[in-house]
Amino acid sequence: MCFKIEMAQDQLEITSSNDDLAVFTRILVKENDKENIRNYALGTVLVNAHILTEIVRKLGGSELSFEVIDERMAKIDDGNGTYKLVCMPADEYPDIDMERIGTPLTITSTDLAKLVDMTAFAALDKETRRVLMSINLKAEAGSLVATATDSARLSRKSVAIDPSARFSVNIPAKTLVDVVKMFENNYEVELSAGAKRAVMSFGDTMVSCRVIDENYPVSSSIIPQIFNASLEVNSTELLTSIDRVSTLSSDRAAVVKLSMSSEDVELSSSSDQNGTGTERLGAVNYEGERLEIAFNAMFVTQAVRALGSEDVVLKFIGEMKPFVI
Amino acid sequence: MCFKIEMAQDQLEITSSNDDLAVFTRILVKENDKENIRNYALGTVLVNAHILTEIVRKLGGSELSFEVIDERMAKIDDGNGTYKLVCMPADEYPDIDMERIGTPLTITSTDLAKLVDMTAFAALDKETRRVLMSINLKAEAGSLVATATDSARLSRKSVAIDPSARFSVNIPAKTLVDVVKMFENNYEVELSAGAKRAVMSFGDTMVSCRVIDENYPVSSSIIPQIFNASLEVNSTELLTSIDRVSTLSSDRAAVVKLSMSSEDVELSSSSDQNGTGTERLGAVNYEGERLEIAFNAMFVTQAVRALGSEDVVLKFIGEMKPFVI
Repeated sequence: MCFKIEMAQDQLEITSSNDDLAVFTRILVKENDKENIRNYALGTVLVNAHILTEIVRKLGGSELSFEVIDERMAKIDDGNGTYKLVCMPADEYPDIDMERIGTPLTITSTDLAKLVDMTAFAALDKETRRVLMSINLKAEAGSLVATATDSARLSRKSVAIDPSARFSVNIPAKTLVDVVKMFENNYEVELSAGAKRAVMSFGDTMVSCRVIDENYPVSSSIIPQIFNASLEVNSTELLTSIDRVSTLSSDRAAVVKLSMSSEDVELSSSSDQNGTGTERLGAVNYEGERLEIAFNAMFVTQAVRALGSEDVVLKFIGEMKPFVI
Repeated sequence: MCFKIEMAQDQLEITSSNDDLAVFTRILVKENDKENIRNYALGTVLVNAHILTEIVRKLGGSELSFEVIDERMAKIDDGNGTYKLVCMPADEYPDIDMERIGTPLTITSTDLAKLVDMTAFAALDKETRRVLMSINLKAEAGSLVATATDSARLSRKSVAIDPSARFSVNIPAKTLVDVVKMFENNYEVELSAGAKRAVMSFGDTMVSCRVIDENYPVSSSIIPQIFNASLEVNSTELLTSIDRVSTLSSDRAAVVKLSMSSEDVELSSSSDQNGTGTERLGAVNYEGERLEIAFNAMFVTQAVRALGSEDVVLKFIGEMKPFVI
């Protein structure tokens, strides 16, 4: 993979792309009173992205020179080390469409990161159905709702937005996870989406990514609204107890049983090969009839971790799947 | 893998073994004035080692009860969690020979760990020649010398011992690395070696391990004594410079060239695909004629790291392999 590096009039432009997304970023020659780039001449070159990143990272100094000797060779020097890197002429780089699509929605990077962090774990991680590998972002009635599901579990989170925005787009979960990792400050993120691409721009960076142009197979009514029982429990105690009882299971997706009554809440797990384990949950608040449900330890663990709050409330309809707040 | 757990009169005995080594350790019922074990009855049982270790580690409390219900089931309880583990009768455990062999040599765990840490990296890590996967420990003339080689490089370290000890034994490097990881204090380690087994005992623990009964194929004269050139260099600068120039190489075993003269010491590396890199070493002291050698970046990196000292001295005969102190 190559970076396209272009020294333009007022800024150094770096472009990188793969099949799923293209990233464009820039370093201004002068930023306020700070001089970022000195002694430059205009030009463009393609450099191996991995090698360039590693060398610049390992040099670790405060300043270095980057000189294109000809379109086949660039030189990096920091005073002690001198690196001559094989390059390619810029005209071999594909054309990349970075244009915004329609009127963008503006949200904070904190809100976008929250939507992604709280839903991405529930997206499908196998190539069996591309639309389920996405997070659906739906802007409607003043909310931006992120939904991810692998069809065995579903995660949803919403944030308030400008009520005029209205769209629905499926962006691969992996792309969104990569994009929120790029956030270094609390930016205003401009998000615009079309049938083929979505564009997010923040700070000096712009990301254009492939979207999955299909109807997202989950309607907003899939999450039940009426529950017959609820359990409030300390997140850490729930996680460590699930971890302990699932030790007995030989495979990763341990099935854990949760038995709840007004007197007692117990987690248990058993395996013919290894034995049985039972954990009594201490500080809990259960409201409802005596109820016993079984769940996938990994699903519940990932959901409780994604929420990141001190306590969680699990709501139940019956011997059905729990809904975690 | 099972632990054999035996409650004896004054101590709880735990034995574990695989093809390469057997480990025996004990917890005294009373240690000085401390009561480690209360309310016990004598008996022996076999328990799955992984499950037992994980559950006890995850319970993390200060006290737990371990109760053998019958020879097929044991119960662990810490007040909140109750685990019933599948067990096996003790008579299914193999007989393990933990007897000492002859008069043991006594060395400190610090010295033994030093011998192992400074040589193990040079042992062969492929199953092609078993004796080279070992560290040779040779007691002779008041020294215990550890040697490891994969036949492309050799590492040797010695410590002073009781002059009466005299033996040579090849112990698998992996076994010794595992044994020195068990050291928690500065123990006196008693080491005795025979043709089939070596026994090391320290603290409340005893390890009996398989040895490779072959002549170690390296004589003590293999390391040259006369050098024509030497280079003294800061370890960190050498390591980071090797790391930077070898970035250009696509495979892990990068070849790095070291060019030395009284004016200048340079490391360089090149790859047709990626380009060339050169690093000038700053604070060095080179004595000798102009000399150029090539080395395997990983070999030198591992050796310099194993030494763990601030500066290293590399000595050279000519276009030969360096000898690192």
